[in-house]
Parts: sequence; C-alpha cells; structure tokens
Amino acid sequence: MKLIRYKKDSQISYGILDGNRVREIQGDIFGDLSETGTQYPLEDVMLLAPCVPTKMFALAGNYKSHLGGGDPSEEPQPFFKVPTSVLDPMGTIIIPRGSGEVHYEGEMVAVIKKTAKRVSPEEAPAYILGVTCGNDVSARIWQRNDRQWWRAKSSDTFSPMGPVIDTEADYGNLLLQTRLNGEVVQSQSTADLIFDAPHLVSFISQVVTLLPGDAIFTGTPGTTGRIKAGDIVEVELEGVGILKNSVADEEL
Amino acid sequence: MKLIRYKKDSQISYGILDGNRVREIQGDIFGDLSETGTQYPLEDVMLLAPCVPTKMFALAGNYKSHLGGGDPSEEPQPFFKVPTSVLDPMGTIIIPRGSGEVHYEGEMVAVIKKTAKRVSPEEAPAYILGVTCGNDVSARIWQRNDRQWWRAKSSDTFSPMGPVIDTEADYGNLLLQTRLNGEVVQSQSTADLIFDAPHLVSFISQVVTLLPGDAIFTGTPGTTGRIKAGDIVEVELEGVGILKNSVADEEL
Repeated sequence: MKLIRYKKDSQISYGILDGNRVREIQGDIFGDLSETGTQYPLEDVMLLAPCVPTKMFALAGNYKSHLGGGDPSEEPQPFFKVPTSVLDPMGTIIIPRGSGEVHYEGEMVAVIKKTAKRVSPEEAPAYILGVTCGNDVSARIWQRNDRQWWRAKSSDTFSPMGPVIDTEADYGNLLLQTRLNGEVVQSQSTADLIFDAPHLVSFISQVVTLLPGDAIFTGTPGTTGRIKAGDIVEVELEGVGILKNSVADEEL
Repeated sequence: MKLIRYKKDSQISYGILDGNRVREIQGDIFGDLSETGTQYPLEDVMLLAPCVPTKMFALAGNYKSHLGGGDPSEEPQPFFKVPTSVLDPMGTIIIPRGSGEVHYEGEMVAVIKKTAKRVSPEEAPAYILGVTCGNDVSARIWQRNDRQWWRAKSSDTFSPMGPVIDTEADYGNLLLQTRLNGEVVQSQSTADLIFDAPHLVSFISQVVTLLPGDAIFTGTPGTTGRIKAGDIVEVELEGVGILKNSVADEEL
C-alpha cells in the first residue's frame, strides 16, 4: 500500500495512492485504516511530506561506500533533524545565506508506526510503518565548523521527504538512486546498509521513545555533491517513488 | 505573570499561578489569554512541563565559567534536544542502562511566544514568552564518544523543565542556582551569559524557524557533577521558581 498526505481545497488529508487515483483516508495512518469513499485524480491534489514527525533522526556513516576507506563505527551513529526542516515533494530546497557548500544526500527513510521503547531488532519491523525517500541536505562548512550539526542538517527545507510511504516494500533490499539534473550521482542497494532499519529502530528506542510518524533517515551511500540554485535533485527508491525537488538561493 | 501547565482530573490545561491559586486558562498561552473563571488550590493540581515544544535547543559553552579556561566561540553553539526527553517538575530523571556518568546542568530556558524567522536581536524579546528553569541532563561518556549528542542529551527524562514560565522576569539578570541534595553546586547570574536569550533567538532563527512553545536551554555555568539514584536536583531561577527532580536508575 502506498500512503500519501495531500492538500485539496486547503484541507489536509491522508490517502492511499492507487495508480493515478487518491483514495481519501479518515483520520491518520497509524491505526486501522478507514476510507471515506472519496476519490480524486492524483493531479487534483498537492502532495505533502507523507507524515508529520515529532522528531527525526539521520545516520552518519551507515554505508561502507560513504566512509572514504575509514572503518565503520561499532554502533549506529544517529543525529537529530527537526520537523521545521521538512520539505514537501516538489518543494524548493533553499540554500541559506552564508552556508557556502550545500550537498544532496539521497536516503531511504523509515517511518515509525507505533510508540517504540526498548524494542529488539526482531520486534522492530512491527514498529515500522514503511519507507519513503528522503534527502538529508547538508551544509558542509557548518557541518565541519559548528560544535554540533544543527543548521548543517536542519536549516528550513533541509529535509525533503516523500512522496509516498510504501508499507509493503522489501526495505532490506531496494535500489536507492539520486539524480542531479537527470544524471545518476548515487546508486546503491539498501541491502548495503551497515545497520538496517530494524536495527536502527531497536538501537534508538533503547533510550529515546519513538512515536508514530517519527522518521529515521537511514544514511547516504557513496559520495555526495554540491547543489546550487536552478538544480533539480531526485531521490528514487525502487518501486516506492521519486522525490523531486528544485534548488534556489535564499532571497536577500 | 507566572504561567503553568497542569493536570486535574486527567484533563490538561494551562493556568496562571497566583500565589497558591491556579486560575484556569482557556486554550493555549501564546495568544491573548482568556480565563475560564475556574480556580483551584495549587495542591489540587499536578504540575506539568509548562509548554509543549515542537523542538528544543540547548547551548554549548555559553558561560565563560563553564569553559575551563578555553576561549568562547565567536558564534553561539546550539544543539538539539527532542520533545520526548521533556520531564515534568517533580518527575524522576532516569539514568539509562549503560550510560555511565550522568551530570546535572542547571539552566535558564527561554520559551518562544510566536513564530520567529530571521528576527534581529532587537526584535527578539517580542518573540520570547518568558523563562523557566531547566536541567540539561548530560551523559558524559556518550557525549564524548558518540559522533553527535543525541542520547547524551535527549534520552527520555533528560530535559526537566518548569514549573512556571515567568513572563515578566528580567531574564538578562537572574541568579541561577543548582542544588544537589540541598547543597549549592552551581550559582551564577544570567547576566554572565556570553550570548543572551534575544541573541540566541535571533541567531537560531536565521536558518531554523522557531515555533510557539519551542524552548532554548541557554547554557550552564561553572562546573557540573554526577547525579545518581536517590539524589534530588533543584534548579532555581531567582523569583521565577524551583525545578525539583529526583533521580533513579532504569529498571532492568
């Protein structure tokens, strides 16, 4: 099932994407789904980020190909991204004044289904609603020079997510591709994650309670590159969807 | 005015603390306050953290006395704390399994009144609802060894806040004191903050939108010490209130 969140006539709803039809859902997507019976053509709605996280995590160094020859950590290395950085599909990534070099990081994002505290890796899949595409946009100079990664990873618009949460994808083995202006710049299977999604949910939940809609950006593969005003960045998860965003400079 | 949030008969409300009386507020505390007319004796309600942040910031190295002789940064050094780490006044700080050495950090917390993006230091006071007491509980080994400060600063219960938001305090010059089992262990005026609350709101808001109820832990003075099961930690802001929490080990 492919879950979306959308705006129609200034009303925000969850829905099921069924081919090119949107089937409206009553309430939220975390319990038993109930449909209103209303349907729309996809082109009549505006797609939004598919969930509303109370907090987000991203992972540092979670593909060997991203480590530049260095050794993987013994434990996952999460960090926070904040909800105000979420950007809708088709939204514009804004390069903040003074940020200098800003990079794409195409990632698979796991979305939490129900409250998780101290769950085991074996139990964790039941706490994952599904996966979506994400871009962990990163201001490299701030990432290097600030004590902690806050504006480097969570400036407004730095967390594009969507367009759909796929509840049935085999998230342990999906091709993840990033394209910059149509050219493939990252391409790797999520089978190559050092710590897979259930492991991350389990690890984080040992000390931090995860809530429905919370999101975990699972890490980026290979090398990343700079994005600039006028660019188009796409992150595609095989069979799940394509997250497409434009890039612009902050207006002065 | 001293604003509180409380539970009474399993209903959560905001209120005004008036001596030992609680005057119930209709709705939230960010617009024009309207009272319901209902009042309770303070002892009949359970005090909660005084706001519900969508995100929280804390500051590294924002008192010279905390730098151990090092030089202050040229810019503020914020990091994130997540809402699931918020602990109510009188709540119990839980020392997580495997965290080792956990410290108190008594702090003044600024609470955001209205949406702030790119505000100047001069405009910033209008975006601050008031201040409350906070404890930026810190697991030092995780803080030292993890790539980023997530569980070190945001394990569940690591952000005690409250009990009141004082909307009239002169937050540029308040005595901040931390007591461990009754003994004063931190004591300094907020006049000694390297970057004061309006400066922090302005700086953060250049790139991250601040929302009503968001909280900024402004930094801790002097040296910090370990807390252990059975301890009582109090953070007092002169004329504002006393935040008192007990400490326990996580149950296995």
